Amino acid sequence: MKLYSYWRSSASWRVRTALHFKGVAFEYVPVHLLKDGGEQNQSAYRALNPGRTVPTLEWTEDGGHVRRLSQSMAILEYLEETHPRPPLLPEDAFARGLVRQRAEQVNSGMQPLHNLSVLQRLVALGVDENAWAHEWIARGAEALEVLAKASAGKHFVGDAVTFADVLLVPQLYNLRRFHVDLAPYPTLTRLESAALKLPAFQAALPE
Amino acid sequence: MKLYSYWRSSASWRVRTALHFKGVAFEYVPVHLLKDGGEQNQSAYRALNPGRTVPTLEWTEDGGHVRRLSQSMAILEYLEETHPRPPLLPEDAFARGLVRQRAEQVNSGMQPLHNLSVLQRLVALGVDENAWAHEWIARGAEALEVLAKASAGKHFVGDAVTFADVLLVPQLYNLRRFHVDLAPYPTLTRLESAALKLPAFQAALPE
Repeated sequence: MKLYSYWRSSASWRVRTALHFKGVAFEYVPVHLLKDGGEQNQSAYRALNPGRTVPTLEWTEDGGHVRRLSQSMAILEYLEETHPRPPLLPEDAFARGLVRQRAEQVNSGMQPLHNLSVLQRLVALGVDENAWAHEWIARGAEALEVLAKASAGKHFVGDAVTFADVLLVPQLYNLRRFHVDLAPYPTLTRLESAALKLPAFQAALPE
Repeated sequence: MKLYSYWRSSASWRVRTALHFKGVAFEYVPVHLLKDGGEQNQSAYRALNPGRTVPTLEWTEDGGHVRRLSQSMAILEYLEETHPRPPLLPEDAFARGLVRQRAEQVNSGMQPLHNLSVLQRLVALGVDENAWAHEWIARGAEALEVLAKASAGKHFVGDAVTFADVLLVPQLYNLRRFHVDLAPYPTLTRLESAALKLPAFQAALPE
């Protein structure tokens, strides 16, 4: 598999974590989101991913068909269905719902409001993009801490690692990046430490 | 089941569509996002949903446990797992991936940038919120039209209705609401018409 990715993209980081966790070998193809107006906006990459986002996962099926998926949540679900062991979702339907709710709180509730293209647009409109990101990230983290307290065992939902942990770790990187005080979120930082003890989470770190 | 919902919320609309499609009876509980600073920001609702969003789905299990889920994609997946017939996902893993990619293009790629709380914040910062919404919706629709052309049969991915159609219909309402010209998106409007022939999609309309 090929993963078109940018080192600091939290959506790419999620997919790297899942690939390492499931032991799926992949080749890393860098897409530079800043160079020359952003490689994601150039026609070569737009042909692979009309949404102009990273990551894009690409592979060739038996028979020669090239397949591509983008959107990190869609890729995580695909990997879970095609490589179910080790699992990143629990077996019980309600527990799976809790995991996806927490993952989506990050995926659709936080990350879209501070991704690079949005911040660039805000700068052009004269808005302080760092204050904007700080505000939405802190608001999202407040909700995430309440959700974490309600569901956490050793990991975010119960005692096993799930999508929720996979999304949490890159999001906490963004809290630090935008200088959000971590003190109000002791459950989130505890869960981050627990996840980062695992080799797959270490292997996926951007540095 | 109780659905805490706001009439114009596209995320609530998605869940209404899925509930009707699967024949799940539900009680509608309105949450007014504008009245008194927004009922979603008041402590009674925040106790149900710390993310302060609609919808929230609530039900009581045998044994008396009250269960709640929020985040529309998490709810759709839960309904699919607990009420698999009629299906809203295809059987093939890659086709399921294509469906979720298209759904996420709306869920995380478009809707978060023009939801009510974001537009309210932009107004407070002196940004033209309608121009902002118009710009991101048109950019998202351009990608969605390319994805639709690549996967559509009678519906968005192949010939059966899926999550992708469930998310498309409320999003096209938002294109009209923000006066985005629909002419460049003939595939999307064709798919909307096809979906709106189905009783579940008609029953879920906000009016």
